[in-house]
Amino acid sequence: MRAVVAREGKLTCEEVADLTPAAGQVLVKTLCCGICGSDLHALHHLEHMAELGRRAGSIGGGMDPKAGVVFGHEFSAEVLDYGPGSAKPLKAGARVVSMPIIMGLTGGASVGYSNAYPGGFAERMLLTEAMLLEVPNGLTSREAAMTEPFAVGAHAVARAAINEPSAALVIGCGPVGLAVIAGLKAKGYGPVTAADFSPARRKMAERLGADIVVDPAKESPHAKWSEMGVAASGLEQMMARMSGQTVKRAIIFECVGVPGVLQNLMEAAPAGAQIVVVGVCMVPDTIEPFFAIAKQIDFRFVLGYTAEEFAATLRQIADGVIDVKPVITDAVGLPDVADAFARLADPESQVKIVVEP
Amino acid sequence: MRAVVAREGKLTCEEVADLTPAAGQVLVKTLCCGICGSDLHALHHLEHMAELGRRAGSIGGGMDPKAGVVFGHEFSAEVLDYGPGSAKPLKAGARVVSMPIIMGLTGGASVGYSNAYPGGFAERMLLTEAMLLEVPNGLTSREAAMTEPFAVGAHAVARAAINEPSAALVIGCGPVGLAVIAGLKAKGYGPVTAADFSPARRKMAERLGADIVVDPAKESPHAKWSEMGVAASGLEQMMARMSGQTVKRAIIFECVGVPGVLQNLMEAAPAGAQIVVVGVCMVPDTIEPFFAIAKQIDFRFVLGYTAEEFAATLRQIADGVIDVKPVITDAVGLPDVADAFARLADPESQVKIVVEP
Repeated sequence: MRAVVAREGKLTCEEVADLTPAAGQVLVKTLCCGICGSDLHALHHLEHMAELGRRAGSIGGGMDPKAGVVFGHEFSAEVLDYGPGSAKPLKAGARVVSMPIIMGLTGGASVGYSNAYPGGFAERMLLTEAMLLEVPNGLTSREAAMTEPFAVGAHAVARAAINEPSAALVIGCGPVGLAVIAGLKAKGYGPVTAADFSPARRKMAERLGADIVVDPAKESPHAKWSEMGVAASGLEQMMARMSGQTVKRAIIFECVGVPGVLQNLMEAAPAGAQIVVVGVCMVPDTIEPFFAIAKQIDFRFVLGYTAEEFAATLRQIADGVIDVKPVITDAVGLPDVADAFARLADPESQVKIVVEP
Repeated sequence: MRAVVAREGKLTCEEVADLTPAAGQVLVKTLCCGICGSDLHALHHLEHMAELGRRAGSIGGGMDPKAGVVFGHEFSAEVLDYGPGSAKPLKAGARVVSMPIIMGLTGGASVGYSNAYPGGFAERMLLTEAMLLEVPNGLTSREAAMTEPFAVGAHAVARAAINEPSAALVIGCGPVGLAVIAGLKAKGYGPVTAADFSPARRKMAERLGADIVVDPAKESPHAKWSEMGVAASGLEQMMARMSGQTVKRAIIFECVGVPGVLQNLMEAAPAGAQIVVVGVCMVPDTIEPFFAIAKQIDFRFVLGYTAEEFAATLRQIADGVIDVKPVITDAVGLPDVADAFARLADPESQVKIVVEP
């Protein structure tokens, strides 16, 4: 079959070995697969990612970066065939999505970040039969492929303390930040303030439901806390509590994932803030813990989603609770994946490019 | 009056100006005051502490480090006189404790970390009338002075998710770690594992109620998780959940406060751990956020205590729920404070030295 192979910092569209499903596995034809920011990072830092994954016992830890990897973990697909002994729960031709996890003979692996299991930038994939979710009628394969990135937002929101009196700020409106905004609005939450240097990303944040958008080049997003009903200092909060007022908590979703952002947030955040770290920073970062101590800040680092959150996100997309169409800004075939990776560097022109093998 | 003044890295016992209580303030005679690890740090890094406090809007932010500061914020005292217009709620001679916070004409200040309000290493102090708590009959002034450091432990425990199925590990058994152990046991919590390189500190941890003590030079404290019923990997936890087993969460109290400990914990902690940061690290620290992300770790940075926690701790000490006597390893007068600071560097000989002016 044809696939786009990442090897030594380059993507090439080439013929790779055909796939045969083992027991519990299903062979699918890839219909659509989004390009994720992690893929952009992985292309140039595959060795480091494999090393980090190995040290942290996490995604990509089993990869041999030199052997070539087929990325793609945000996909919809069509059932082709099952492994031996299967009850074949869905007919061939059924459209499905799945969490990008597969159980093989040597344990679990990440579809899209392993040498053995190609991801969605290939004509076919192997998935786990027990994880298949049928795409509800009428939902396009492009929209269904957005289940994975939007489940990331749903998970971040589920891990945040949004049931307390609070106001939310989303830092960074790339695909992760947009998914968080969608996740907050899907729960009826507001107000949501979103910050991004890019005008296109801010417009996109508004389409996903952000109530207030901020250009950090013009104004600190932290200047908005009092407007959102959050007292900045511990003293103001104590005074408000003593006079029986409800004290709103600042909930900040860090969706950038580059060094320096955590320290910046610790310095600028209101006392008692909760910072949900959704952006995946893969390099060392320096912080001054005293700021987090002095303000009694909570950090919740999050990754991925649960099976329930993944399934619920598919339903919300199918039911129109979350409109994922705006974020899909282009679609390409396998030969143009390398070009699409390059184009995703510009936040003004693209949010999510999907691949249709 | 006589006081021990910190100036340019040295402590000298000298005559300082007498104090006059303003409205809402009370003049007290210091009975007993503990030496805190923060005092040891502040003596040699007062300028940096003032700068950090100013940047973080926190303790010590108003200090002029060159003007001389009288430390001491863990005290018991005797009421001498009140400011103008006071209803004099407690008679002169009453023994009291108080949070080390005072309201002056220019806002709040920290007793013991300000130029205007000397702390307990002085014959007399000014406190806030509304914050006085009378020492219950029979409790010695030495024990009452331990209210402040043990309230720090109570607060850390209150901020942790100990009501979930969990097991706790306390890293570092200096006064902060010991207060956390006492706070956990005061809530009937167990098992509590405590780790410290010092044999004397480990013995002290056992006296405060630790169920298991570990010498990190011999064995990683993280080798004990399975013994405590906590599965180390996310996969094991998922399997346990799927088979209906209760999955215990690791709750780690970081009570060391030096660079490198957070990264070490992120690498060694079980997936899903909560790390309560009680140790006050005042210098920059480098972390690899990916470990916290991959393991979905929560960090709760804590500082101080609430008025309720402070009062409850005094009651628990008076009622014998917390036995603070073991931690008081020596007592000195004002002329010997400088020597006591030096002796506290050795964890084998001392835990808490109190000053009795």
